[in-house]
Amino acid sequence: MQATVMYGAHDVRVEQVPDARLVETTDALVRVTRACICGSDLWPYNAMPPSAVGNRMGHEFIGIVEDLGTAVQTVKKGDLVVAPFAWSDGTCEFCRRGLQTSCLHGGWWGGTELDGGQGEAVRIPQADGTLVVLPVGPDHALMPSLLTLSDVMGTGHHAALAARVGPGKITAVVGDGAVGLCGVIAARRLGAEQIIMLGRHPDRLALARAFGATDVVSERGEAAVDRVRAITGALGAHSVLECVGHGQAMSTAVSIARAGGAVGRVGVPQDDTIPNGKASFYGNVTIGGGPAPVRAYIEELLPDVLDGRIEPGRVFDRVTTIDGVPDGYRAMNDRDAIKVMIEF
Amino acid sequence: MQATVMYGAHDVRVEQVPDARLVETTDALVRVTRACICGSDLWPYNAMPPSAVGNRMGHEFIGIVEDLGTAVQTVKKGDLVVAPFAWSDGTCEFCRRGLQTSCLHGGWWGGTELDGGQGEAVRIPQADGTLVVLPVGPDHALMPSLLTLSDVMGTGHHAALAARVGPGKITAVVGDGAVGLCGVIAARRLGAEQIIMLGRHPDRLALARAFGATDVVSERGEAAVDRVRAITGALGAHSVLECVGHGQAMSTAVSIARAGGAVGRVGVPQDDTIPNGKASFYGNVTIGGGPAPVRAYIEELLPDVLDGRIEPGRVFDRVTTIDGVPDGYRAMNDRDAIKVMIEF
Repeated sequence: MQATVMYGAHDVRVEQVPDARLVETTDALVRVTRACICGSDLWPYNAMPPSAVGNRMGHEFIGIVEDLGTAVQTVKKGDLVVAPFAWSDGTCEFCRRGLQTSCLHGGWWGGTELDGGQGEAVRIPQADGTLVVLPVGPDHALMPSLLTLSDVMGTGHHAALAARVGPGKITAVVGDGAVGLCGVIAARRLGAEQIIMLGRHPDRLALARAFGATDVVSERGEAAVDRVRAITGALGAHSVLECVGHGQAMSTAVSIARAGGAVGRVGVPQDDTIPNGKASFYGNVTIGGGPAPVRAYIEELLPDVLDGRIEPGRVFDRVTTIDGVPDGYRAMNDRDAIKVMIEF
Repeated sequence: MQATVMYGAHDVRVEQVPDARLVETTDALVRVTRACICGSDLWPYNAMPPSAVGNRMGHEFIGIVEDLGTAVQTVKKGDLVVAPFAWSDGTCEFCRRGLQTSCLHGGWWGGTELDGGQGEAVRIPQADGTLVVLPVGPDHALMPSLLTLSDVMGTGHHAALAARVGPGKITAVVGDGAVGLCGVIAARRLGAEQIIMLGRHPDRLALARAFGATDVVSERGEAAVDRVRAITGALGAHSVLECVGHGQAMSTAVSIARAGGAVGRVGVPQDDTIPNGKASFYGNVTIGGGPAPVRAYIEELLPDVLDGRIEPGRVFDRVTTIDGVPDGYRAMNDRDAIKVMIEF
């Protein structure tokens, strides 16, 4: 079958790989119908050391169940399913509490051992815990929004929960990528009164406004902090969603948080220290978040997607077949595209 | 009047200073009856650059209201009052939400402009918002425990709240100083099932056990992490109270937290970065805390002190008059004393 393999920075190839197949009795085999490229794929795209074997890529996908291990009970052949960006057993201590990204028997797609979502088919470990059946056909018009439930919409929601967004709260979103944009949707959905988007790309900022952002701040660093302070009566935002992952973004996030507020971080951190630790301490600013347990959020968000109350699929501004995946990486990295969807 | 002044590292003097006096109509003048030395006083005790004018010291005290500005309404002359370690107006945006340490018109005792608690009398700004009347006489046997409501008991409580301690939770406390010991009391009071104290001083560990610690870990660094993991079935503690403030303690706190757990930090941070930021991210460990709004907690904790349900005053293992304050600093710094009370 064909799949996407990254061999190093800026070296993404689509090539023949061994067909996906069942290994464990708890596995399912899914024929992918839609997948996409993630902003987090750009971190290795810019920094991966050269590799002879390469890493299979992709962790966001929808597909049709083609085969099942004998132990699988919750899905059946022919079901259209969405997979979260981490697989999980659904029964361990952490899954039961809704933190499937810490599943004791779970893991991550791709790499050198497992299939990735940016390929024709995927072996699904722990299929019962992992997959969620979608009540629509594989070419339904809502496919883009449903695909975001595999990662970015759930991740934006996680950031908003960690940042304690709620009715009447002033919310700021650092980062205008697909996750930040979904963070705006999540913040509005949870009742935020004012939503300030910090970003610099006109197409993304326009989408942020369409999603519910009330203010846009395009300055950076200290100037951005000053601007947010000015907008918020000098006090800062109650809730800040950090949707980038580098130190400057995190430092800004802490600086624009109101005393007693919270930062929800979902950008994959590039440093092992959290900056601005004295400011967060003296302001009693709570820092939460991490990899979103999107598996826990699919059921909650799915009705809103099906009813059209939220339209996270609008973050996709480019569609390609699998042959176009390498150029999709380039386009997202060059900020020519917000997020690229792959149709099979 | 006599008061404590720090002129630099290891240079604490008790000397004559101008008498405390009313300045604003919202002030009160309090004659101090009990005060104490704080673990946080040891940071400048070890690091303060030499100063010609010196800093007035002390932020924990009980005293009798001796005089009042014309605008003060909630206390009267002769009242015995306890002062939190920060003064606050009680009416601003943050005070109304119980975050008096971020009061828009508040501040901190001592320094070069204000009286400190380690002296015979203190001018109390914003007396209505700051002071809490105690329903006992100034020589009541519970005076040590009541004095801890000015800081360490409320600070331990704040750490426990930020660490989300609750019934059935496994709690770990990093640091066996007075705040950590009060953290044990707070964790038990909030229903923690298992309380693991990380510390090394036998007298303090004995007190921790008396307060409710179920386990003691005296290893450091990686060995301490391994030990806590072993005690907690490899998963770590749901709630971790960081009661030290240096980077190694914070790193340990994050490392022993369970995925999805929380670290409540109340140790005054000595670094401007929070270590172990990838571990806290991938484990979805929330980091909260800061200067405790002890003013908000006094009413909640006071009944438990008066009824003898909690005995935080047991952290005081040495009593001195004001003349003995410099030696009290030395004793606490040398770990000869846990916490020193000053009687006037």
